[in-house]
Amino acid sequence: MQTNDQLLGAIEHYLGEICYPEDPERLYAPISYSLTMSGKRLRPMLLMLTCGIFTDRPDTAMPAAAAVEVFHNFTLLHDDIMDNAAMRRGNPSVYAKWGQNIAILSGDAMLISAYQQLSKMPAELLPRLLSRFNTMAIEVCEGQQYDMDFESRERVTVEEYLHMIELKTSALLTGATVLGAIIGGASEEDTQLLHRFALELGLAFQLQDDLLDSYGDERLGKAIGGDILKGKKTFLMVTALDRASDEDFQTLRSIYRDPQISAEEKINTVKTIYDKLEVKRQTELQIGLRFERALCTLDQLSVQTADTQRLRDYASSLIGRKK
Amino acid sequence: MQTNDQLLGAIEHYLGEICYPEDPERLYAPISYSLTMSGKRLRPMLLMLTCGIFTDRPDTAMPAAAAVEVFHNFTLLHDDIMDNAAMRRGNPSVYAKWGQNIAILSGDAMLISAYQQLSKMPAELLPRLLSRFNTMAIEVCEGQQYDMDFESRERVTVEEYLHMIELKTSALLTGATVLGAIIGGASEEDTQLLHRFALELGLAFQLQDDLLDSYGDERLGKAIGGDILKGKKTFLMVTALDRASDEDFQTLRSIYRDPQISAEEKINTVKTIYDKLEVKRQTELQIGLRFERALCTLDQLSVQTADTQRLRDYASSLIGRKK
Repeated sequence: MQTNDQLLGAIEHYLGEICYPEDPERLYAPISYSLTMSGKRLRPMLLMLTCGIFTDRPDTAMPAAAAVEVFHNFTLLHDDIMDNAAMRRGNPSVYAKWGQNIAILSGDAMLISAYQQLSKMPAELLPRLLSRFNTMAIEVCEGQQYDMDFESRERVTVEEYLHMIELKTSALLTGATVLGAIIGGASEEDTQLLHRFALELGLAFQLQDDLLDSYGDERLGKAIGGDILKGKKTFLMVTALDRASDEDFQTLRSIYRDPQISAEEKINTVKTIYDKLEVKRQTELQIGLRFERALCTLDQLSVQTADTQRLRDYASSLIGRKK
Repeated sequence: MQTNDQLLGAIEHYLGEICYPEDPERLYAPISYSLTMSGKRLRPMLLMLTCGIFTDRPDTAMPAAAAVEVFHNFTLLHDDIMDNAAMRRGNPSVYAKWGQNIAILSGDAMLISAYQQLSKMPAELLPRLLSRFNTMAIEVCEGQQYDMDFESRERVTVEEYLHMIELKTSALLTGATVLGAIIGGASEEDTQLLHRFALELGLAFQLQDDLLDSYGDERLGKAIGGDILKGKKTFLMVTALDRASDEDFQTLRSIYRDPQISAEEKINTVKTIYDKLEVKRQTELQIGLRFERALCTLDQLSVQTADTQRLRDYASSLIGRKK
């Protein structure tokens, strides 16, 4: 049986073999560029591993896995324009490298390219796959819109934040997982359970991302406090705003804009408030809770526990836990 | 039998009935806004009329017709950002009304919405329709990229220009027409002929659009010379550049940028060169030639001439000719 590393290699190989025309060069070069800036390939991995629970031939799912990965990279490309982000995974973003208009149009072509990949799936599956893919795609747009709306709002509740994350982050994970289940031939009930699994996993995953930005992880070697300096409404921030005194509330909402205060001091001040309000502990509790729920959902599937082991191991590695 | 006006009414009705969620409001309101800024509905009309050649029940094609129209409006939405265009069909563009980020994201959602419409078509047709739709969509992106590339180039040949228009304008017309043929159950040969018809019609249509911008049409009441003032490489301009003396070439390439010269004088100077080089006559010849070719292609279809009459009449009305 294939290991997860071998599966990742197969996904990379498939993505590398997608042929884009040479011309017009400024339409297609940014697509190849962003697809080779290799990420974790989390979404196609989830799709393939889920499919593998139900069939011995999950490799037939590869075009759908590629569709989901190409779609994910399309969202990053357009998000970078909206966020005015010059860097992506340690390289210049398409937006920074080619400019806004190229980034808009290449992104559009990439979204279409995702559908081109999906359309390679067997005809008898296509209506269901297309419908599910569309739902995933529109939910991600809704999540991005809520995220942008939150930027200009004074208050965002924890519930609103979690709903936004369900759309912006979890929708791609649930989409990938459910597509894998459909292709594998899972029952309707198992498909629903896997949707639930991916939803909770996505929440745990995003909350951990939020946590690491403020509290770091030596494995990432990433600068700490980027979200704090941008005044971004993360799970930590909305939790803190929810619990803060009026004075702390004002500090949290305004300090990041103050040109008189150094970056280090801003980060320290916000984290001191976080500590006082037990924000870190709350976030860790939520991550643990969501992750447990995700794994418990897998227990309820109609398959042998051994069949889900690879998916469990992969999910655990994402959240950095042994299970 | 339905008249073309009734068909247009049915298309408007269907488009108006597409339900978009209320939230997030800033994602969906721009979509409804741009779909109600009623255009000619040229592409769904072509799809439905083509389908009607082969079946008595072309109304089953309505979701595909809507998909093509929604896709077309998505391209306008993103084009307006790339062109920095404040107005669209006499109203503020989505870009001007809601800003760049909303226009990017709503456009993305609109592209997905086009696929949602397409996915309502019968399952047995979906693989072919999806594949053809994808081809159409990516060709339009390629055409837009070539158009942007041409802006910064000194010379563009007439052949290059026509190739760009085949992608940017004709691809949507060929896509709509071929989708209609597939849904109607046309033979492979008839489908190929209809592709050819729409390709030539699209060229005639775009060249006429180029011509009207410089020479006007009292029916439109549009300002004349907009393309000249922007230095846009239209069919008229690339034809003139191809034939111009060195001196006229320099004038054509630089006069639109000269802040010392009035708009009226710029337009008059360029049109004087156009007249000297017989650009208007050349363009009219091309429009006539392409339009004749389009109609001749319809003669070769395996159906009775009477069955194609409505499509002929509609094509003629587009180019403003009696046939």
